[in-house]
Amino acid sequence: MDFAERLHRRIRDVDSRVCLGIDPRPSLSELTAPERLGGDPARVADAVVRYFTTVLRATHDRLACCKPQAAFFEALGLHGLEALARLLQVARELELPVILDAKRGDIGSTSEAYARAYLGTGDFAADALTVNAYLGLDTLEPYLDAAVRHGRGLFVVLKTSNPGSADLQDLRLASGELLHQALADRLTERAAALPADGAGYTALGAVVGATYPQALRELRARLPRSVLLVPGYGAQGGTAADVAAAFDGDGAGAVVSASRSLTYLDAHDETDLGRAARAAAGSMRDDLNRALAERT
Amino acid sequence: MDFAERLHRRIRDVDSRVCLGIDPRPSLSELTAPERLGGDPARVADAVVRYFTTVLRATHDRLACCKPQAAFFEALGLHGLEALARLLQVARELELPVILDAKRGDIGSTSEAYARAYLGTGDFAADALTVNAYLGLDTLEPYLDAAVRHGRGLFVVLKTSNPGSADLQDLRLASGELLHQALADRLTERAAALPADGAGYTALGAVVGATYPQALRELRARLPRSVLLVPGYGAQGGTAADVAAAFDGDGAGAVVSASRSLTYLDAHDETDLGRAARAAAGSMRDDLNRALAERT
Repeated sequence: MDFAERLHRRIRDVDSRVCLGIDPRPSLSELTAPERLGGDPARVADAVVRYFTTVLRATHDRLACCKPQAAFFEALGLHGLEALARLLQVARELELPVILDAKRGDIGSTSEAYARAYLGTGDFAADALTVNAYLGLDTLEPYLDAAVRHGRGLFVVLKTSNPGSADLQDLRLASGELLHQALADRLTERAAALPADGAGYTALGAVVGATYPQALRELRARLPRSVLLVPGYGAQGGTAADVAAAFDGDGAGAVVSASRSLTYLDAHDETDLGRAARAAAGSMRDDLNRALAERT
Repeated sequence: MDFAERLHRRIRDVDSRVCLGIDPRPSLSELTAPERLGGDPARVADAVVRYFTTVLRATHDRLACCKPQAAFFEALGLHGLEALARLLQVARELELPVILDAKRGDIGSTSEAYARAYLGTGDFAADALTVNAYLGLDTLEPYLDAAVRHGRGLFVVLKTSNPGSADLQDLRLASGELLHQALADRLTERAAALPADGAGYTALGAVVGATYPQALRELRARLPRSVLLVPGYGAQGGTAADVAAAFDGDGAGAVVSASRSLTYLDAHDETDLGRAARAAAGSMRDDLNRALAERT
């Protein structure tokens, strides 16, 4: 089954549009703090796997998907990448779709290698991957090939939630459009040639930050065939009302991610952690659903 | 010592501007071919380490630096990343500067995590990293912090060598400039506030493909404080005359990379391989030096 179709079926089944961000920052919890584990990278990585396994088991039936952030695993070195492979396995066992947030982008055979690494069948296989299109639309083709062949997805970074996102993404073009709008149009053009699910969504999604609600609304209209991945909710300042604009009239077409606010909670043991994470995921699910219901 | 200063000192010492690209594609050589190694990922990764260790030992005194491409290691899974860590160690032992080509790019604390992963002291520590600035100029700051503090470098992708590089990089802005030119100006502005070596170069470099000589010439002038990393030489079509424009009047300010043409050679054993790689690196070094001498 195609990625968009699987994701939408799950959104309906669990009635949740929450994407749980997995950003391991060991020093943020006493359960993984390096100084309590003798600073041993192998023990820290083990603790990270235990920590996020607890979170995933406690929350998965309240989640549309999860989103490990590659950078935080890479920062923990080889043991960190082993932890990533183990957590991908945990998500697979829970049948929870995984969007690997790695924002890869390169040309030709290098792009093919990234597609093999993350949309293939190896240690780091995920259901979808975030990618950067600055290098050109041709660089997306290897990911799209893998996506169409194996029912995976990709999310192209369009408009991010940081203050500096305007530096390039909002540059005004001679055509009158902003750069990220022109990129959105190119993606829509490309998506027109891809297989779509019942609601018209394809494997070619986009990343649009929660902190620019006006852009979110505008891009939802511009990208009728793309699922939107919306980070920046919670700790970064986006509210449920802000992100409601990312969804179509049926409450489909987007997932909203949060990391710290769902995973780094006041918890002194794993039971605490599971309980707190489950409650946080439930609140976010309900907040999003309420904001959708209250849309005019 | 700063990265630019170290690199320039080495360019003078070995009289070479060659950057050897390490793009492991195991099926391209009988010495690493998976079907000859029972398809075992651990044995393939070991063979890759042996292969490129042979290449590095045979060529290092003819190289300015080397450039492992992260994608090809990631495509080999956990064993591939262990191979990367081992080859980084080999380069360190040979005192050969390493530019890790990973084109990372993300925001805030995620960007900090990438800087820690690749410009820190862990398993994947390199001398310099390639990065993607589409997400904004603020996203470069964690790399610049690490670069200035620890004498490392970064190379921002400006103009790539693929046919689709025009899709975004050459979009005409309302200001009249092309997108990649506007980005170059922002980098020059930022570089003005960074410490420089004797020739005025800073830790903030740029990636400019060899296949667009006109852009190369133009960007050399626009980026007086940035070392240029020039891929696309050889297999991708850039010639020595094309890339001569990347260098300043003293033959400094750039390195030119090639991968396949220096590393995947007709070789049936390691002795063959070392001899062929040494010859190929010597020819490329001489071709570049000749093109520089013949510049008018």
